[in-house]
Amino acid sequence: MKIGLVLTVYNHLTLDEALRQIADLGYETIEIGVERCSGQIDLDELLKNNNAKKLRKKIAAYNLTISALGNHAEGQLVLGPHHSDTDVIFPGTPGEKIRYGIERMKKTAQAAAEMEVPLVCGFCGCEDYSRWFPWPDGNAWDKMAGPFVERWNDILDTFAQCGVKFAHECHPKQYAYNTETAELTLKLLNNRPEWGFNFDPANLLLAGVDPVLFIQLLGHRIFHVHAKDGEIVPHNVRRSGLLAHGDWNRIDRGFRFRIPGWGDIPWKKVLTELRLANYDYVLAVEHEDATMSRQDGVIKAMDYLKPLILHEPFTGKWW
Amino acid sequence: MKIGLVLTVYNHLTLDEALRQIADLGYETIEIGVERCSGQIDLDELLKNNNAKKLRKKIAAYNLTISALGNHAEGQLVLGPHHSDTDVIFPGTPGEKIRYGIERMKKTAQAAAEMEVPLVCGFCGCEDYSRWFPWPDGNAWDKMAGPFVERWNDILDTFAQCGVKFAHECHPKQYAYNTETAELTLKLLNNRPEWGFNFDPANLLLAGVDPVLFIQLLGHRIFHVHAKDGEIVPHNVRRSGLLAHGDWNRIDRGFRFRIPGWGDIPWKKVLTELRLANYDYVLAVEHEDATMSRQDGVIKAMDYLKPLILHEPFTGKWW
Amino acid sequence: MKIGLVLTVYNHLTLDEALRQIADLGYETIEIGVERCSGQIDLDELLKNNNAKKLRKKIAAYNLTISALGNHAEGQLVLGPHHSDTDVIFPGTPGEKIRYGIERMKKTAQAAAEMEVPLVCGFCGCEDYSRWFPWPDGNAWDKMAGPFVERWNDILDTFAQCGVKFAHECHPKQYAYNTETAELTLKLLNNRPEWGFNFDPANLLLAGVDPVLFIQLLGHRIFHVHAKDGEIVPHNVRRSGLLAHGDWNRIDRGFRFRIPGWGDIPWKKVLTELRLANYDYVLAVEHEDATMSRQDGVIKAMDYLKPLILHEPFTGKWW
Amino acid sequence: MKIGLVLTVYNHLTLDEALRQIADLGYETIEIGVERCSGQIDLDELLKNNNAKKLRKKIAAYNLTISALGNHAEGQLVLGPHHSDTDVIFPGTPGEKIRYGIERMKKTAQAAAEMEVPLVCGFCGCEDYSRWFPWPDGNAWDKMAGPFVERWNDILDTFAQCGVKFAHECHPKQYAYNTETAELTLKLLNNRPEWGFNFDPANLLLAGVDPVLFIQLLGHRIFHVHAKDGEIVPHNVRRSGLLAHGDWNRIDRGFRFRIPGWGDIPWKKVLTELRLANYDYVLAVEHEDATMSRQDGVIKAMDYLKPLILHEPFTGKWW
Amino acid sequence: MKIGLVLTVYNHLTLDEALRQIADLGYETIEIGVERCSGQIDLDELLKNNNAKKLRKKIAAYNLTISALGNHAEGQLVLGPHHSDTDVIFPGTPGEKIRYGIERMKKTAQAAAEMEVPLVCGFCGCEDYSRWFPWPDGNAWDKMAGPFVERWNDILDTFAQCGVKFAHECHPKQYAYNTETAELTLKLLNNRPEWGFNFDPANLLLAGVDPVLFIQLLGHRIFHVHAKDGEIVPHNVRRSGLLAHGDWNRIDRGFRFRIPGWGDIPWKKVLTELRLANYDYVLAVEHEDATMSRQDGVIKAMDYLKPLILHEPFTGKWW
Amino acid sequence: MKIGLVLTVYNHLTLDEALRQIADLGYETIEIGVERCSGQIDLDELLKNNNAKKLRKKIAAYNLTISALGNHAEGQLVLGPHHSDTDVIFPGTPGEKIRYGIERMKKTAQAAAEMEVPLVCGFCGCEDYSRWFPWPDGNAWDKMAGPFVERWNDILDTFAQCGVKFAHECHPKQYAYNTETAELTLKLLNNRPEWGFNFDPANLLLAGVDPVLFIQLLGHRIFHVHAKDGEIVPHNVRRSGLLAHGDWNRIDRGFRFRIPGWGDIPWKKVLTELRLANYDYVLAVEHEDATMSRQDGVIKAMDYLKPLILHEPFTGKWW
Repeated sequence: MKIGLVLTVYNHLTLDEALRQIADLGYETIEIGVERCSGQIDLDELLKNNNAKKLRKKIAAYNLTISALGNHAEGQLVLGPHHSDTDVIFPGTPGEKIRYGIERMKKTAQAAAEMEVPLVCGFCGCEDYSRWFPWPDGNAWDKMAGPFVERWNDILDTFAQCGVKFAHECHPKQYAYNTETAELTLKLLNNRPEWGFNFDPANLLLAGVDPVLFIQLLGHRIFHVHAKDGEIVPHNVRRSGLLAHGDWNRIDRGFRFRIPGWGDIPWKKVLTELRLANYDYVLAVEHEDATMSRQDGVIKAMDYLKPLILHEPFTGKWW
Repeated sequence: MKIGLVLTVYNHLTLDEALRQIADLGYETIEIGVERCSGQIDLDELLKNNNAKKLRKKIAAYNLTISALGNHAEGQLVLGPHHSDTDVIFPGTPGEKIRYGIERMKKTAQAAAEMEVPLVCGFCGCEDYSRWFPWPDGNAWDKMAGPFVERWNDILDTFAQCGVKFAHECHPKQYAYNTETAELTLKLLNNRPEWGFNFDPANLLLAGVDPVLFIQLLGHRIFHVHAKDGEIVPHNVRRSGLLAHGDWNRIDRGFRFRIPGWGDIPWKKVLTELRLANYDYVLAVEHEDATMSRQDGVIKAMDYLKPLILHEPFTGKWW
Repeated sequence: MKIGLVLTVYNHLTLDEALRQIADLGYETIEIGVERCSGQIDLDELLKNNNAKKLRKKIAAYNLTISALGNHAEGQLVLGPHHSDTDVIFPGTPGEKIRYGIERMKKTAQAAAEMEVPLVCGFCGCEDYSRWFPWPDGNAWDKMAGPFVERWNDILDTFAQCGVKFAHECHPKQYAYNTETAELTLKLLNNRPEWGFNFDPANLLLAGVDPVLFIQLLGHRIFHVHAKDGEIVPHNVRRSGLLAHGDWNRIDRGFRFRIPGWGDIPWKKVLTELRLANYDYVLAVEHEDATMSRQDGVIKAMDYLKPLILHEPFTGKWW
Repeated sequence: MKIGLVLTVYNHLTLDEALRQIADLGYETIEIGVERCSGQIDLDELLKNNNAKKLRKKIAAYNLTISALGNHAEGQLVLGPHHSDTDVIFPGTPGEKIRYGIERMKKTAQAAAEMEVPLVCGFCGCEDYSRWFPWPDGNAWDKMAGPFVERWNDILDTFAQCGVKFAHECHPKQYAYNTETAELTLKLLNNRPEWGFNFDPANLLLAGVDPVLFIQLLGHRIFHVHAKDGEIVPHNVRRSGLLAHGDWNRIDRGFRFRIPGWGDIPWKKVLTELRLANYDYVLAVEHEDATMSRQDGVIKAMDYLKPLILHEPFTGKWW
Repeated sequence: MKIGLVLTVYNHLTLDEALRQIADLGYETIEIGVERCSGQIDLDELLKNNNAKKLRKKIAAYNLTISALGNHAEGQLVLGPHHSDTDVIFPGTPGEKIRYGIERMKKTAQAAAEMEVPLVCGFCGCEDYSRWFPWPDGNAWDKMAGPFVERWNDILDTFAQCGVKFAHECHPKQYAYNTETAELTLKLLNNRPEWGFNFDPANLLLAGVDPVLFIQLLGHRIFHVHAKDGEIVPHNVRRSGLLAHGDWNRIDRGFRFRIPGWGDIPWKKVLTELRLANYDYVLAVEHEDATMSRQDGVIKAMDYLKPLILHEPFTGKWW
Repeated sequence: MKIGLVLTVYNHLTLDEALRQIADLGYETIEIGVERCSGQIDLDELLKNNNAKKLRKKIAAYNLTISALGNHAEGQLVLGPHHSDTDVIFPGTPGEKIRYGIERMKKTAQAAAEMEVPLVCGFCGCEDYSRWFPWPDGNAWDKMAGPFVERWNDILDTFAQCGVKFAHECHPKQYAYNTETAELTLKLLNNRPEWGFNFDPANLLLAGVDPVLFIQLLGHRIFHVHAKDGEIVPHNVRRSGLLAHGDWNRIDRGFRFRIPGWGDIPWKKVLTELRLANYDYVLAVEHEDATMSRQDGVIKAMDYLKPLILHEPFTGKWW
């Protein structure tokens, strides 16, 4: 298993400067976000003039690989929400947002193929996530199944043609946000091989879901892992509950994202279960810990994870 | 403190038959829902020909009082959501739904006044509840403050004229859903006296909020209490988390509403804290326990709560 | 659901005196043990001269029914252990013990049929229960499958002929002792309809098994329920662990059987899950609480359980 | 086991009126406080003119017995503290307070003897309770052993002559305040038979001591039991800790005394362990629950305890 | 944040030898105790002949700074107790002890000023700490407010003149011992800027107080931090409770002080909350772990804390 | 305290290759299993021609010592079980197995003496371990005391002659398997000095026993320590309980053995308590973690334990 880094944390540096630091810290691979709003990579440019290959070579020059391209924001547009909250991703009518989202996800698959990256991580979107609570329309969640199947099958056909897989990240505001809904999407898509998960345990903790059981039940479909921790803050959670609203900088939240090892995720159990599921790809550190600086977080995450990595494949009991 | 019942549980009986049974079981007061979609009471008719008084007399004939009118569904329209999920309440454009919701809440206040009921319980609505998670628009929750203040101040002006108060029920899909957002609404409304809460501990448990702390912090604004319990189902919650989607009849949910005493709410602590906050009005049993029949639930709830009622006012240490 | 009593607690009284007391205390049905060593009922006599019918009539005269015949001791002989520990049940060589056990279980089925009792509760036995720990022979547990299948299929054929079912009680020292091994027996017996379970939650607690999950997974095969509680004694368990050796009278044990409501079984969760599984037969109080006298236990058990009984069938959400 | 009441709760009524109410509520016995500051009983008068016998007869006329005389305040003077805090009990120099305390405890024994009451409950006092923390003088706790032995042996000699026992209540501010110091006093007094304990589980909970283990280790020396509960208030305890200062009326305390069943004491475990220790005397309800009125508390305590009382002696496993 | 050491642990070495070892182990700063009874520093000598400056230079020669002077023992005399327990600090009448304590604390401030140390850590004292339990005088705690305000305002006036602050350590036997009483002292002193806290989480754990909440509520007044851990010993605490009496060497205590990382303090949560409160001064290891030798403790504490130190200031969410 | 390794993990290598790797990884000492079935050491050969001394020298050449010889399998034969499960150790009649077991344990003591190893670790055996549950023969456990005393006294006489001690490992399937039965064996053997324990905390966790209390009560008789961890797997244990049957490779077991630091054993508490008991010999890593390869396990165990080792003897509080 390799330790990687989601590149976003260095979006204030030039790419070269970022890659140099990442390699120096011992990270072996990166996930690069390509949504337009991230301002990092221009997907249209990337698909021109061998730019994709050039980028791959530049990264390889630092002895780094690309574990996955990321496109969370534009994937959100596929199913919604389509009101003003997503204007920051792409302004337009619902129909325009949907078309744009679908087109961009397909383009992301093409870019991945050109860069010889086997995977795209992202969000599938959800028209109205609050429908998990069955009121006033008890069937509102079920009604979202149709658009999910139609639009994502369309996108995944392109992924299939490109030989790239899509790893959805179960997360609040997504149609698949817990173990049950993740299982549901597999069923709806007839287990098509391009669809799997980018496992991020912090997103599950936030909703009271057991991340270790997620691996046990769905480990064969985990394509990528985000090493992100979550902290239930005992002296705050009584007021805000787990569903704390407001900006991440609000310091009295009942829940915070943390770097691995500083929250409540049982990492040894997570890593053991990933191993039992024969997962052996990448642990990509996603630093969204508002209590730590960029640099402190990236260093402490590596310090914490490195001693936990197992180096030999799981072959079962050896005695 | 009196033990009451939310009338919905007997919406399959004639009103007279329902009132007879309720009184026989020892309940002393009822909450009556007046939203059109509930099919129980026609609000427009009620406001004609002394019908309100007649209804009050009919209820009094069974030695019952009315603790509050309830109008959850039409209150939801005030802030939304305004998409198809709320068509079951009132079909129309967002603007039409808003206008209808505001008008109906005002009418509910008038009906309460005519029936000499001091209180309306209900929901305030929320355009998009999933905005508690600050993505993609980190300020989306805050942006909902303007419509909340404008529309509810308008409604509450009518409540003030009628001498009636409004008790919002903190609940998923509402702008005020936990202790923090409840405090926020008080601040936004400058603590105007018509605005308070219908405390329902099960709705808080579901989001990881401590119901006892809610009372400690906001007890002076609790106008009404729903005696409803919630059960975190240990053998299911690992898969679904607390935010279990789908119909209440799904038996493998990680969370269920229950009648008081059959879930995880610490009722003695709740009742003690209500007492310390000098709350001395009504505990209205709201039976939404899908594991029990109507009759079993109504009987068991009374069996559980009756021995817990304290009969003398809180005067502090007496020795 | 009816509250019943396992008759053993009154084995110091005449049957008539016992039945009178049981009926007076509000129990509606009894389980009668017929193993020879219990000294209560002579199975051979019972099968002669219409004695079975006479016994049923005598019991009916007290307005009591028979929920099940019990034969735990002689069922143990079917699979073992066959060393001196079981001489108290029937002395002999292993072969003789097996033959005797099989024959007596068949006879018990016949007696049940003659008495119009639909069910026999009992143990299936286990040659060496300590084989759950896979050492020194890692396959020793698996090797017991063959005799289990052969001997119990033979017995169950007679049950099928008699129209009677067998409810095995998962319990230490039995081949099926937890949820996993219970599932295993169903698989080994090809789900034949005569084989199911006498659910006793205390026996599961003792081994760290969740009784509520047992119901969720195997509720459709629960034929009978023992209302017996278990207590993990916190100030003792650190020394003895859950597997406390020695006589039940040893007061510093880390685990004790208790009457319902005085131990750690979450009875409301158990009863809710039984209901969701559509179980609607008998809760038979088995008093093996060494801290209480016969009479205190039988009274307190009824006091605890009676208010928990639901009277209407489960029909799901009614609103 | 009988349910009794500490009379203090009715110190606003005439004795006759109090006795009448107590008997009507189902209590069978009372503990009467005789310290001068309680204002209930004048000990000097009691010892004159057959007054003790007259009082006993008056009480017996209500079918009540006296489980114990109580003298907590004057016992406190025996070891201290002797500064101004105890002036409310008896003003004077330390020497005068000690002499008064000793004399009054002896007189209490004499009164008990005259009233045919076998027991006095009370406090032994402690010069400086904060010495449990070994700083600045690491031996300060040990230094208090000498006065304890000398003064209490003197008092207990009178108890022996009177045929009365003394039950010390382990409690904050006493030399024996937890299981370890209770054991220490037995050792210091060479297990003399007049010295034992008035077991009050709430006082132990407050200091983090396990009340059930206290019974297991010291049950043979428990002469009397106070049925008083304690509540660790989760939403407050983070700020105040268990050692909350200030008046009992302060509603945001992290710890409160409660009536039985409304706090965190595991009463079924307490009663089971008392039974295993062959304790079969009195459960005296001491109502110091600042959240409940006198009357609510006395009624709810009886409601809670009555169904828990076992009626037959412990004889061990009966099967 | 720097890691420091309270010098006491090396009071068996010459100062030079101690400083050498401390610097070699990676500590960057020290706290020096100046109470006479500690035998380390003669405060009177220090104030003569530029001795303060010489001492500072000697320490600087080892690349160490002084985070604070400590004077716990003599501060205790200011409020008491004034009985024989404090004779080891200074023998005399209560009046003499008070005068001595006040004078010495002022002198400590002067020494700090001469040594250019901005801070004195210490205790404020408490006449009778056991008064937190409101009996027999329910107002006894409140009565201690007057002397606290008068004497400490006097001392703090000198601190103000010297430009030095005082950091009180909340601890058993002090007037401010938990979050509530710490807040009380700020209120009593009108938030004067010289008064703040030496945060030591182990002292809070001992009383059931949440150290993380202390930081959230009072972080702006935390001037210094003691890195000391506390262990609730599960197999002992049932007997002794948290308030275990007797010498620290007693190995069956229910509570022990430990070096950081070997007890129950959640250090990552503590350090995160200190950071959110913008605390960026010193973590001073105070080794009072009776289970470890001086050297093992000082080494293990550094091993544990060093990887937890964050190096960049808190600037909030950076993305 | 030294960190050692149980040699079994390298039974696929030549001894020389194993020793080289062990030394390179920083282990200082090894435990060598000598049972015939382990195939590592031929005990009969060892006792010939100075082979024992040669082996010791070979090991010393790698700067390794031998902490103990191990003989678990053949010790099991002494008390049983004697049915087919133990044929893999030695086939024969019960009598033959007993004689072989006794003889081999004596021979192991002789080999230890010749190699100057002070200790043999192993199992004592148990005829039928399931007898801890007192049914059907309530005295079956007690009846095993006789053979235990007779056979082990015989063996221990040889140990005494050889100047070697025996350390029994409390473990499922042994007569001494928890703290209580360990205490029982000491009593039965009149505390003879050759009998003590090989403390393995994972074996205790499996049965719900507190390993730290074991040390407190029996630390003076702990001769050797196995550093083995155990993991209660939360998402599995509800089904299988703690007594999970079947092969260690079954990945959905509710309990697994783990390497130190990856399970639920509180190692700092274990090491502290060992220190308080003055244990200062060897922590021998026994790698039976089916989720890790040989090499990963041996490396991670050393990484985890090394920083926890204390280097100086326990002398109590030093200040």
